[in-house]
Amino acid sequence: MNVYSQQQIISALNLTEAAQQVAQGFVAFSKGKVKVPPVQNFVFPQANGDCCIKSAWVEGEDTFTVKISTGFYDNPSKGLESNDGLMLVLSAQTGQPLALLQDGGWLTCIRTALAGQIAAKALAPSNIQAIGIVGTGMQARMQLEQLTVVTDCRDVIVWGRRQSERDAYRDFAEALGFRVETTLNAQQLALKANLIVTTTPSREPLLKSEWIRPGTHITAVGADTLGKQELDPALVGRADVIVVDSIAQCSQYGEISHALKAGLIDKQQLLELGQVLAGDVSGRTNDQQITIVDLTGVAVQDAQISRCALESCAQA
Amino acid sequence: MNVYSQQQIISALNLTEAAQQVAQGFVAFSKGKVKVPPVQNFVFPQANGDCCIKSAWVEGEDTFTVKISTGFYDNPSKGLESNDGLMLVLSAQTGQPLALLQDGGWLTCIRTALAGQIAAKALAPSNIQAIGIVGTGMQARMQLEQLTVVTDCRDVIVWGRRQSERDAYRDFAEALGFRVETTLNAQQLALKANLIVTTTPSREPLLKSEWIRPGTHITAVGADTLGKQELDPALVGRADVIVVDSIAQCSQYGEISHALKAGLIDKQQLLELGQVLAGDVSGRTNDQQITIVDLTGVAVQDAQISRCALESCAQA
Repeated sequence: MNVYSQQQIISALNLTEAAQQVAQGFVAFSKGKVKVPPVQNFVFPQANGDCCIKSAWVEGEDTFTVKISTGFYDNPSKGLESNDGLMLVLSAQTGQPLALLQDGGWLTCIRTALAGQIAAKALAPSNIQAIGIVGTGMQARMQLEQLTVVTDCRDVIVWGRRQSERDAYRDFAEALGFRVETTLNAQQLALKANLIVTTTPSREPLLKSEWIRPGTHITAVGADTLGKQELDPALVGRADVIVVDSIAQCSQYGEISHALKAGLIDKQQLLELGQVLAGDVSGRTNDQQITIVDLTGVAVQDAQISRCALESCAQA
Repeated sequence: MNVYSQQQIISALNLTEAAQQVAQGFVAFSKGKVKVPPVQNFVFPQANGDCCIKSAWVEGEDTFTVKISTGFYDNPSKGLESNDGLMLVLSAQTGQPLALLQDGGWLTCIRTALAGQIAAKALAPSNIQAIGIVGTGMQARMQLEQLTVVTDCRDVIVWGRRQSERDAYRDFAEALGFRVETTLNAQQLALKANLIVTTTPSREPLLKSEWIRPGTHITAVGADTLGKQELDPALVGRADVIVVDSIAQCSQYGEISHALKAGLIDKQQLLELGQVLAGDVSGRTNDQQITIVDLTGVAVQDAQISRCALESCAQA
């Protein structure tokens, strides 16, 4: 079995290939071709930590993947990152472990950013005036980076709570070639941007329905567990097209679940990203529609990105 | 993270310490102090394979364990073992992966054999006339090896279907210092041995009730999934003391489940090995009783043996 470090994985991964594989993974998932056993969860109250174990196999593929992700929130006081993680890739032909990817959670970040790219490519309006990024963390950066592949727009407006974080994001985005505006006022962001990505762990809505202009596309990636929320449920209720990575999962948690529980939308309205990508259903049909993609994260993304990473590392 | 090979693990593991830890694990499990998320299972029909992922954390311990076991039954035709496996040990204080134990399934075999040792120590009659081993495979060997720690008896009678396997087992057991008899007749075995271990993947009873003499102890380790069975349900019904590793699991499959379904025993009769080891309930109380221990395998054994293996390897 090969063991690859985070650095080896970051250097080797072919992002174009990875994006294609993640997109194909969404299609396979929506066609019911992905085996995903129930997630295993641990809570470690004595250490303010948790762990989840997700596994997936895409039928027909030669490999399957087991991912272990940890979050220990007192780690920074020990000089350690809060989040850690690794993926194991095994042969679906012989059961042999093929690779241990010690990515420290990076592959999860990048597969989430690639899902944002895929969502924008499929659903954003044809003319993007400005990109709006809600949040200033790692995922806020990776989402912007991955959007450069699908739009020529180089205007970004960034919302963040702290001046220091907004400044740091400005430096990052300028280095990427963007004209950058930062704001503490999310309404300002909604007035300028018509391709918005929300990336925070917020537990209350940051974007109000009345701020959002017709034609806007929103990809929401922050709300990935129970209790998190970035969008006004009324905004979800008002959207013309609502796309999710997994109808089953997004009915439980994420942006959509809040609107469902409030009776503002009907489960029948929900489309899966894999259905849109396969062309089985229509996504955006005109530039006046509001579209929302809610990404809570599905294990098929891990299966696809880890196989890509293994292939890229083996060739490097 | 340290990566240890099967050979390193086999050389380093302190079996005395491991047996103590596995016994403590059973006690913790029966006290409800072990967190065990639902097992993840995959089936790979295209390759005649399967995979299961078991995880456990013993509350208060500094580590937790994720075990991946595979069985690909066409592997021998490719020159590979059917069974493979590995364990990952992570910190329950920081989430960091501490060790990858590439044991190839050996730790699962040895923790099962140690459970047999623990069961015999707790429940076998005081005077062991002969040890009876049903089966001639790897587990049949490891069980005998581990029993040498708890009894001075060096007479063994072995049941196996094939002459070549019986002969090979004879060589193995003689090298261990045993006087060996082999047989194709399980009744013969029951007539001689009063400490019996059954280790086969049989799907029909191999030991009939009427063959078993008063005072006999039987440890059954073969029936670890649905459909497997080594003991006559009437024998389970006749036993004076029935001990299981997990009441919840043994009610689903294993020897006990067949007798439960047939109405020959009541769930109230079942004792857990951890309860017996803790002294919370009585096991055998005289040398005329028939005792049965049904071991289907629980993830706490993996958590305990992997922590021991990590400690032993780190000191080696």
